[in-house]
Amino acid sequence: CSLDSLVDTKIKEALKGLELNPSPTKRMSCVSITNSGRLSSCPAGMVVTGCACGYGCGSWDIRGETTCHCQCSTMDWTAARCCHLT
Amino acid sequence: CSLDSLVDTKIKEALKGLELNPSPTKRMSCVSITNSGRLSSCPAGMVVTGCACGYGCGSWDIRGETTCHCQCSTMDWTAARCCHLT
Amino acid sequence: CSLDSLVDTKIKEALKGLELNPSPTKRMSCVSITNSGRLSSCPAGMVVTGCACGYGCGSWDIRGETTCHCQCSTMDWTAARCCHLT
Repeated sequence: CSLDSLVDTKIKEALKGLELNPSPTKRMSCVSITNSGRLSSCPAGMVVTGCACGYGCGSWDIRGETTCHCQCSTMDWTAARCCHLT
Repeated sequence: CSLDSLVDTKIKEALKGLELNPSPTKRMSCVSITNSGRLSSCPAGMVVTGCACGYGCGSWDIRGETTCHCQCSTMDWTAARCCHLT
Repeated sequence: CSLDSLVDTKIKEALKGLELNPSPTKRMSCVSITNSGRLSSCPAGMVVTGCACGYGCGSWDIRGETTCHCQCSTMDWTAARCCHLT
């Protein structure tokens, strides 16, 4: 009946409107934060995915979730690779 | 007519209910898994985003998708940086 | 009235259809891109989460958002760890 098709049409329109505004597609976005010394921290809301260190050093660990700590005895710079979803 | 507005109202209510329960916002979350020796693996469901090695070593590769392998000749520890969406 | 329940039923059906096709759950996926020399780049659409270098070198930086640059004076290979959401 016409009532039926009216309701169907309205629902389809409403859903079509929804599809035009889907939840935005998330993407990864990363930045490097470089600091002098042996520590470098990511901005709030970002996570550390890796660290780079001066003096060719590849020994590092993460302190307090978001801070890179380069372990070699002498260290002039530390870089944190920081990512989040946007 | 009143039929029209009734349907409109009901659809709006149904969609408002949906918007109160959107698909949960995903975030990145990471942990470090440190192991003695030259291999360290991420837990199931996580990906490796980087590795750290003992002896200041920065030469590593990924084996079998989720395992960090530190390449320097002598190696005492290996850390995998492991991330996933939560 | 019966009009009311007809509309309710139709809306519920339409939403049930939606729930069967929710926005697909995103996951992180990563690959390593290894290149000779001191530069290695991620494919389009991926981000760099970390780098590895030959000669045990752990000093690297990111050039132009998606390229790993290993800094040690002598360098034979560079690997970029590249991730995206799938």
